[in-house]
Amino acid sequence: MPTIEEQMPATGQPLAETRRATVPALEARLGEPIPVLDSGFIRVVDYMGDDAAIVQAARVSYGAGTKTARDDAGLIRYLMRHWHSTPFEMCELKLHVKLPVFVARQWIRHRTANVNEYSARYSILDREFYIPAPEHLAAQSRVNNQGRGETLAGEEAARVLAWLRDDSTRAYDHYEAMLSQDGQQGLARELARMNLPASIYTQWYWKVDLHNLFHFLRLRADAHAQYEIRAYADALCTVVQDWVPAAWSAFEDYRLNAVTFSGQGMEALRRMLKGETVTREDVGMSAGEWREFEAVWK
Amino acid sequence: MPTIEEQMPATGQPLAETRRATVPALEARLGEPIPVLDSGFIRVVDYMGDDAAIVQAARVSYGAGTKTARDDAGLIRYLMRHWHSTPFEMCELKLHVKLPVFVARQWIRHRTANVNEYSARYSILDREFYIPAPEHLAAQSRVNNQGRGETLAGEEAARVLAWLRDDSTRAYDHYEAMLSQDGQQGLARELARMNLPASIYTQWYWKVDLHNLFHFLRLRADAHAQYEIRAYADALCTVVQDWVPAAWSAFEDYRLNAVTFSGQGMEALRRMLKGETVTREDVGMSAGEWREFEAVWK
Amino acid sequence: MPTIEEQMPATGQPLAETRRATVPALEARLGEPIPVLDSGFIRVVDYMGDDAAIVQAARVSYGAGTKTARDDAGLIRYLMRHWHSTPFEMCELKLHVKLPVFVARQWIRHRTANVNEYSARYSILDREFYIPAPEHLAAQSRVNNQGRGETLAGEEAARVLAWLRDDSTRAYDHYEAMLSQDGQQGLARELARMNLPASIYTQWYWKVDLHNLFHFLRLRADAHAQYEIRAYADALCTVVQDWVPAAWSAFEDYRLNAVTFSGQGMEALRRMLKGETVTREDVGMSAGEWREFEAVWK
Amino acid sequence: MPTIEEQMPATGQPLAETRRATVPALEARLGEPIPVLDSGFIRVVDYMGDDAAIVQAARVSYGAGTKTARDDAGLIRYLMRHWHSTPFEMCELKLHVKLPVFVARQWIRHRTANVNEYSARYSILDREFYIPAPEHLAAQSRVNNQGRGETLAGEEAARVLAWLRDDSTRAYDHYEAMLSQDGQQGLARELARMNLPASIYTQWYWKVDLHNLFHFLRLRADAHAQYEIRAYADALCTVVQDWVPAAWSAFEDYRLNAVTFSGQGMEALRRMLKGETVTREDVGMSAGEWREFEAVWK
Repeated sequence: MPTIEEQMPATGQPLAETRRATVPALEARLGEPIPVLDSGFIRVVDYMGDDAAIVQAARVSYGAGTKTARDDAGLIRYLMRHWHSTPFEMCELKLHVKLPVFVARQWIRHRTANVNEYSARYSILDREFYIPAPEHLAAQSRVNNQGRGETLAGEEAARVLAWLRDDSTRAYDHYEAMLSQDGQQGLARELARMNLPASIYTQWYWKVDLHNLFHFLRLRADAHAQYEIRAYADALCTVVQDWVPAAWSAFEDYRLNAVTFSGQGMEALRRMLKGETVTREDVGMSAGEWREFEAVWK
Repeated sequence: MPTIEEQMPATGQPLAETRRATVPALEARLGEPIPVLDSGFIRVVDYMGDDAAIVQAARVSYGAGTKTARDDAGLIRYLMRHWHSTPFEMCELKLHVKLPVFVARQWIRHRTANVNEYSARYSILDREFYIPAPEHLAAQSRVNNQGRGETLAGEEAARVLAWLRDDSTRAYDHYEAMLSQDGQQGLARELARMNLPASIYTQWYWKVDLHNLFHFLRLRADAHAQYEIRAYADALCTVVQDWVPAAWSAFEDYRLNAVTFSGQGMEALRRMLKGETVTREDVGMSAGEWREFEAVWK
Repeated sequence: MPTIEEQMPATGQPLAETRRATVPALEARLGEPIPVLDSGFIRVVDYMGDDAAIVQAARVSYGAGTKTARDDAGLIRYLMRHWHSTPFEMCELKLHVKLPVFVARQWIRHRTANVNEYSARYSILDREFYIPAPEHLAAQSRVNNQGRGETLAGEEAARVLAWLRDDSTRAYDHYEAMLSQDGQQGLARELARMNLPASIYTQWYWKVDLHNLFHFLRLRADAHAQYEIRAYADALCTVVQDWVPAAWSAFEDYRLNAVTFSGQGMEALRRMLKGETVTREDVGMSAGEWREFEAVWK
Repeated sequence: MPTIEEQMPATGQPLAETRRATVPALEARLGEPIPVLDSGFIRVVDYMGDDAAIVQAARVSYGAGTKTARDDAGLIRYLMRHWHSTPFEMCELKLHVKLPVFVARQWIRHRTANVNEYSARYSILDREFYIPAPEHLAAQSRVNNQGRGETLAGEEAARVLAWLRDDSTRAYDHYEAMLSQDGQQGLARELARMNLPASIYTQWYWKVDLHNLFHFLRLRADAHAQYEIRAYADALCTVVQDWVPAAWSAFEDYRLNAVTFSGQGMEALRRMLKGETVTREDVGMSAGEWREFEAVWK
């Protein structure tokens, strides 16, 4: 029986001539898997548009076409700075992604995208589970209940890894045994799958426009995102950089490296720039907001 | 520690006066869980609009306001028949749903809805797993690879149930053991959850407009849908019936009980009505389409 | 000053090599305007995917990959017949459209698409108005208030055409005069534009996936749609036919040429096939529904 | 014949008892038009949810339910600060809006909302046009091509107002004359409407969730938005303030009054806080970005 990957060929298009916008750096990546986590990957299946397509759309809607001086990168930076998002929607990316189910469950929350997932209702999943590398086997954070603390060590780490391995192995053994039609009826696939843990790998095609991809990256390539989805977001960042370098650069400056200050934060900043010493009470911030405000300067 | 349900109170709003459209039959249901599967439920948390709100919107967009004779139910039937969907979007329903993860994964594919799911990244899941009732423990269909065949019996059924129970129990035991901070660091919740199988129950708030709810019901209250999600769709049907009885009746007649014939199917029908005997070759149908065409008349 | 069209070049991409899915019949159309109405057009700016991309996505989600016999066109027909819409979302089309504002207002109601419209806030609109050809100058229907009746003739037609021409000419003259900065300040563009009638032409880029494009065509290439938007939908149909011929053929058979019968309609059909004579009272149809039911057989 | 407003009654619901979340301050506003521009208005038709509904959803998804100390307003501020948008989607607002067509054309670009507009295809528009008050009759900005400059004065203002009045009056006279079936056939409504200018008033029901409403307000209650749509956004702000005061306050602090600095801006800020004098070349900003950076401190 073919594995899922054999059923999802992303490569193999013959070389053809086109008059569509073409990006050589992304052509070189087409169909090439970029490894993520222990057994996952992303690979680019198709794309539409380039930096120039963003500019083309923007000149129409924002009238910049009447000026000649403004160069394309500058216009793209202007769009990004002013949240003019529609021109970025004129570019589209299609990926083939292999990812653990618990990552897929976070990923799918981004609704403005097109998805075709491998169906465990109709087909049989492969025996592949995400087992964290030792350096990613992290303890629950003691500070807040939303993140990771230090790396597990010694016997505890060994115990956790053994459970993750043994439980997924046993679950898959039973999955196969329940499906088997050898001397028995064989349980329906759509039922048998429910014995499989969230660490199992699934696969899908995911198609998204650049604006919504940036939104995804802003949330998922962020330090607050779970490491496992961040690993996919980080790999995606290298793809976007090759695809639309000017838009990527603007995204880095105005989103990834940008900082937003609240009304209270601006009040504090204004006073600090005058040389005043400001406390959180002076500007009416909560303890949490003040902690985040101070963290910016470290 | 509070269970998930204790953290998700849907009831408890005091009685208040309102000038909003109000539906007594749905008021009576507010906060009342309707049991689904072995441990799941749906309950109505809030709603906006009623049959009259659909009519109000329709009269504006389809000019029916200039006629006086047409009664509301007739107008709603007209809208449904002619795919005028926007007036149905003027009604909104908010539910609290408890459902197995593998059902949640199908459900979430309906993108035009608002969702807040219980987070296993930040919180701890309860020890509750879906175990099919004996009559729903079905074999894989021999006819097609998309459905269920006969019910499993005897030793095979017992074996399957034992595995589903044992594997989920063991997975949860280890989940708890990995989380424990008793004499060890305790694995991060966002990692420990990946040991849990897709049969575990999760919960969410789900808010959707009536048009998209009908679309959901059309696909999920259908005989081709997996039994487990159909059980939720069926429960939802009773809610919609209480909420917007005229729209529900139109939906039943023009969607649930409706049949669509292709160009070829219409050609066959026209000939049959003239008394001719028609074969699939006469009208150029595939074997599959012909099988479906014939099934309509049984 | 450049006209809008000079600011919206859709052609001019140099020939390049690609490994993306490529459709020669659509390549030949890239950048070529297809005339619509008196001064409008659509032209294809870019596209992603082909019939094979639909199949590729479908094999993953619907497990058809495990069968070898089913050919691609048959699978596409199966998807269309069973409302499996996600594989069609894997194809994307980008158009440049020139259209009257009152058509644009209908068109934009299709929300699941990306749009960059020429901005009359930042730029100056061209002096181009839609004036119906004599054969499209239709009277209000006497039968219902939603359509057109016979063509206007004689003096009435001449009077209408004269008003449409004179009023738009005068409005544009004043638009220019208000904008002028010759010896006066010159009204803001964003205000001056409000003097222009809905017959003026605007332009936009419109990008949509194939599933939503089919939905658009189903509603707008329909006899109930206003003639002017139907003219655009008809032109689009020829594009889709060249782009994804198998999907187009399935769409024709299962949507455009398909007929849906309600529960009551099916009851009537079943009886008629047995040779019975059926009245609308027998099956509980309204007068309107019965009229539509009878119209099917003419 | 009834006017559009008589066909769109938003009031008149009898007082009823409900167990849904109820906001007395918004109940008092139900059905009451808030005047906007010369003849427009917004009025609240219905709503779902309140501040507590946001908190209820958030506690589920962000695990805050396990803490007791954090008060509701603090949690809402935390959500807003960290772009956790889904809990805000749990609230929904339905409005009846009367607005000029050129404003409607901007408004409709916000796609994630439900709309039923008065149909000029099926019905007849009222004779009402937006004529700017003298203080809003602004010249084109000399600085950029995206905004307004000084107010027009004297003869130029008088001339503009006369044209706006005369052209719309004449266009409507001809609209009526073309529609008339008195001694002639009467042009189809769907055609006659194209003679009407973009200053004419239309009406619609608009339903949106709070997250998307905030997005709308952020863009349209902004100084860069056209005055006419800003007038509606400003009126909406007073509604939101009454409806969900805690969410509104967070929105004010973290969106309306917030400032975002790019990577380069942060570099400049860090140096300035150390007492350095920074030029735009030092941090690699464009002239435009530097201008905007400096404007923040004025």
